[in-house]
Amino acid sequence: MQTLEQTLWQILGDMAVDAAHDHAHIGRVLHTARHLALEEGQVDADILTASAILHDLVNLPKDHPQRAYASRLSASKAVTILRTLDFDDAKLDGVHHAISAHSYSAQIPPATIEAKILQDADRLDALGAIGVARCFAISGMLGRMLMDPVDPLAHHRPLKEQLYALDHFQTKLLRLPDTMNTKSGQRLGHQRAAFVRQFMETMAAEQPH
Amino acid sequence: MQTLEQTLWQILGDMAVDAAHDHAHIGRVLHTARHLALEEGQVDADILTASAILHDLVNLPKDHPQRAYASRLSASKAVTILRTLDFDDAKLDGVHHAISAHSYSAQIPPATIEAKILQDADRLDALGAIGVARCFAISGMLGRMLMDPVDPLAHHRPLKEQLYALDHFQTKLLRLPDTMNTKSGQRLGHQRAAFVRQFMETMAAEQPH
Repeated sequence: MQTLEQTLWQILGDMAVDAAHDHAHIGRVLHTARHLALEEGQVDADILTASAILHDLVNLPKDHPQRAYASRLSASKAVTILRTLDFDDAKLDGVHHAISAHSYSAQIPPATIEAKILQDADRLDALGAIGVARCFAISGMLGRMLMDPVDPLAHHRPLKEQLYALDHFQTKLLRLPDTMNTKSGQRLGHQRAAFVRQFMETMAAEQPH
Repeated sequence: MQTLEQTLWQILGDMAVDAAHDHAHIGRVLHTARHLALEEGQVDADILTASAILHDLVNLPKDHPQRAYASRLSASKAVTILRTLDFDDAKLDGVHHAISAHSYSAQIPPATIEAKILQDADRLDALGAIGVARCFAISGMLGRMLMDPVDPLAHHRPLKEQLYALDHFQTKLLRLPDTMNTKSGQRLGHQRAAFVRQFMETMAAEQPH
C-alpha cells in the first residue's frame, strides 16, 4: 500500500510551478520540517507531511493583490484533496491551520506545533544560498533590477524591494531568523542569514559606487 | 562640451534591457575595463569607452538560435551610431572588433588590447556575487530550475545547463578565469570564481540528497 507521502506527491504531479516554488522546494520544506520536528515534543506526522507537501497549492505572484490570501486558498484546496483520501478527518483542521499560517504575508500566528514547524521550514528555504538563488530567480521573472547601482545597500535612501532584488534581503530575508518559532529553526535561521548577509555585502562591494 | 561617455550614455537612454544586461551591467563593465587598462600598456581610451558602453546593443536571449551573432550585430550598430558622432573614423575598426570579440558564444579571438580588456571585463561581471545573481535572474526569466534536487553538482550525470541554473556554474562560470587575457583579469577572475565555487557548494549542501 502507498504511504500518505507517496499519494500526495502523485497528486501534486505536474501542477504548475515556478523555479522558486517547484517540487524541489516542497521536498526541501518537507525534509527540513521533519528535521525540526526531531527536536520538538508531540508532532503529528500525518499533519506535518500533508501540510508540507500541500502548502503551496495556490501560489500567487509576489505582486498579486490577493497574495495575502494565497495560503488560505491552499489550505482549503488541501482539505478538499485530503477528504478524498484515507486521511483522518480529525486532523483536517490541523492541516488547514498549518498551511494558512505558514505564509509570511498571511499574518496568521501559528498556534500548533505543526504550524510552527511548517512556517520555520518554509522560511529557512528563503535563507542560505538557496534563498539567495530563489530571490534572484523571482526578481528575474518579475523584471526587477539586481540592485541600485548608486546605493546598493540603501544607506541613504528608503528600501525599495519592488525595484531592487537586493533590497529584499533587508526588507525580509535578514529579518526571518527573529521570526522563527522553534529552537532549531532559530539556530539554522541565524546560520543561513549570516551567509545571506555575507553575499549581500560582497555583491555591494563589487558594484562601483 | 559633452564627453564621448556622456553622449553615449544619452544614446543608450531607455533601450530595452533585462536585469542581467542593464545599464548597471554596462557601467560595471566600463569601470572594470578602465581598471584593467591601468595595468596594460597602450590602450586607446576612446575605443575602450565606446566599446564598453555599446557592447550589448543587440542582446539575444541565451536560448536564441542567432545568439552567436549578437555581438557582431551590436558591433555594426555601434559603428553606425559612432559615424553620426564626432568620433575618429580610424578607430571604428577597433570598436567593431572589440565588440564582436567580447562575446563568449561568438568565438572570435580578441586581437587588440582593447578587445582583450573588454572581453575580460564582461566575463568578470559573470563572476563573483554579481555573477551568481545575474545567473539566477536569467534562469528565472527562462523558467529554468535552480538545480537538480537529486544530484545538484552533477556527480553522476551529464551537465544540463538548459535545465538547471547551477549546472551553468560548471559549464561556463568556473571556466572563465582560465580564458582571461590580461594579468589583472586573471587575478580578479580567480578571486571571484572562488566565491562562485563556495556559493555552489553551499547551495548543493543545503539540498537534501
